[in-house]
Amino acid sequence: MSANANRKVVLKSYPKGAPGADNFEIIEEAIPTPGPGEALVRAIYLTVDPYMRGRLRPGPSYAEPQKIGEVMIGEIAGQIVESNAEGFAKGDYVTAHTGWQTHGIADGRDLRKLDPTDAPISTSLGVLGMPGLTAYFGTLDVLRPKAGDTLVVNAASGAVGSVVGQIARIGGCRVVGIAGSKEKCDFLTGELGFHATINHRETKDMAAAMKETCPNGIDCYFDNVGGPMTDAAFDNMAFGARVAICGQIAQYNDTEQAMGPRNLRHFLVKRATLRGLLVHDWRDRYDEGLTRLTRWIRSGELKYREDIVEGIEKAPDAFAGLMEGKNFGKQLVRIGEDPSRG
Amino acid sequence: MSANANRKVVLKSYPKGAPGADNFEIIEEAIPTPGPGEALVRAIYLTVDPYMRGRLRPGPSYAEPQKIGEVMIGEIAGQIVESNAEGFAKGDYVTAHTGWQTHGIADGRDLRKLDPTDAPISTSLGVLGMPGLTAYFGTLDVLRPKAGDTLVVNAASGAVGSVVGQIARIGGCRVVGIAGSKEKCDFLTGELGFHATINHRETKDMAAAMKETCPNGIDCYFDNVGGPMTDAAFDNMAFGARVAICGQIAQYNDTEQAMGPRNLRHFLVKRATLRGLLVHDWRDRYDEGLTRLTRWIRSGELKYREDIVEGIEKAPDAFAGLMEGKNFGKQLVRIGEDPSRG
Repeated sequence: MSANANRKVVLKSYPKGAPGADNFEIIEEAIPTPGPGEALVRAIYLTVDPYMRGRLRPGPSYAEPQKIGEVMIGEIAGQIVESNAEGFAKGDYVTAHTGWQTHGIADGRDLRKLDPTDAPISTSLGVLGMPGLTAYFGTLDVLRPKAGDTLVVNAASGAVGSVVGQIARIGGCRVVGIAGSKEKCDFLTGELGFHATINHRETKDMAAAMKETCPNGIDCYFDNVGGPMTDAAFDNMAFGARVAICGQIAQYNDTEQAMGPRNLRHFLVKRATLRGLLVHDWRDRYDEGLTRLTRWIRSGELKYREDIVEGIEKAPDAFAGLMEGKNFGKQLVRIGEDPSRG
Repeated sequence: MSANANRKVVLKSYPKGAPGADNFEIIEEAIPTPGPGEALVRAIYLTVDPYMRGRLRPGPSYAEPQKIGEVMIGEIAGQIVESNAEGFAKGDYVTAHTGWQTHGIADGRDLRKLDPTDAPISTSLGVLGMPGLTAYFGTLDVLRPKAGDTLVVNAASGAVGSVVGQIARIGGCRVVGIAGSKEKCDFLTGELGFHATINHRETKDMAAAMKETCPNGIDCYFDNVGGPMTDAAFDNMAFGARVAICGQIAQYNDTEQAMGPRNLRHFLVKRATLRGLLVHDWRDRYDEGLTRLTRWIRSGELKYREDIVEGIEKAPDAFAGLMEGKNFGKQLVRIGEDPSRG
């Protein structure tokens, strides 16, 4: 391994079921040189996100599949090494979509400049990045909770769920979080101000647990997970309930079509609404979202937690662990020195 | 059987699975006398509707269950025999919720006066009644089709579906109807101006049939049926699709929880919206709906078809047949002379 090489994680094979380190390999190559309008970016943090699982299959999802032999896609937070991109200079902290590699070439239009005095640059991949914006627009635009509403969110200690719950709490909702350990549940009520939690790994009758924690029914359900948990939520909807489908991670590793109860009748009885969301659709309003999220972080109303592992070789395992809920907070991989952190 | 008796159909037992004549019995009793503010109404037409199946079980649906031993619920079109209700006189044609009986007492607030010169009074239970209004608000308020959109509706020759499709056609949509016989399909394209049809009883691969008839995907899906047909529609949604859940008749006779593929992921990928509807929620706008529907009928833009059987003793079979799609057009039961029909 040379200090002057670009190390990158490429996809070796499409996973069958759960992804593993054996689906990836790390290779080295010469550090590339930026062309006109481009910049060379040194990655400091990689992000692993559930949506990536959807790219790791030959068929199309909402985007092109990840190609075998190519660097694994993804956003990074890093620092510019060399710039031909207008408005960006060596040393600037930026986000870019250069994927899982130490050094990547980004078009200037792909760069977002970061101010490390706002918040640590790692937050640009979490609470002040796509996950935070997903939570922001998904909660305020799709679910539109009113004060007094009961909102339920799953994967609640994760990058999206934790922000959904806190935005709803700030808006005066009763917030119930579903998470996969006592430690996570304690964090939700103790640190993030959730009103109640359900530990899904310890809950046999999810519908009963929801009934208990949501005595007036669920007005807003933010779904990152899908599966039996979501069946139980449908059973417990209040009249006029809104459901945001943000992710269905329970199915992403499936090798066969999962089956579940036909339960659309609940939407009729409760006059409920369901909508699928992808943050890109609010592209024109990212500035608004980032401004408000940053303000809430500065005021202390919005908290975040990161789960950072070290070393690019850990990226495949971090990704595989994310799919099983092993992370606790936004899962990141630090692959280079972060001079912005004092 | 006495000409001076009230004949009524009462529920004898809750059906297990498909309802049948043995779940009902016909009894006779003295014709009742209206109290203050009430009217005695002679029923001319009974309506049988899919929602009634939901009442024929002990548990609650969106309304109280039908009680054993009591007259079967439902709206009727008839004529006032004796009135203590302000604004209503003997001989007036009205609708009322007096159920499956020849003579019933209605509170004046339950009566809707009919003008037989507008349209035959039987239409007050179909195209100019709850089914027509369901189609009107479900299409215009829930699906909000734009000219050029592709709209798919199932149970398309039925009371609701036929109106949904025609409203969408009037609005400039490409309209695809799903129905259960060649005769029904021919009626949809030949009489009602649908652009394409799918005969679900002759179609093995519904998803492929939808792909063929909806080459640009389904923008609007009006669902009266549910089940595998709806799975196929979800597979074929266009970006930004809207789904209205009006009924799930495929499940109403189920004795066990039906299972189907977990397919909410499509709502994420296509950023689709689903909403359950019940016409009562537009109660304040019924006049608007009836005015526009009546205008379309008068202009010939909106057509309707009725399937009328004769005799109150046929009501249970008509209802059972409706649940299997044996009717062709709005299913009604004529149980008395209709002097308004020349």
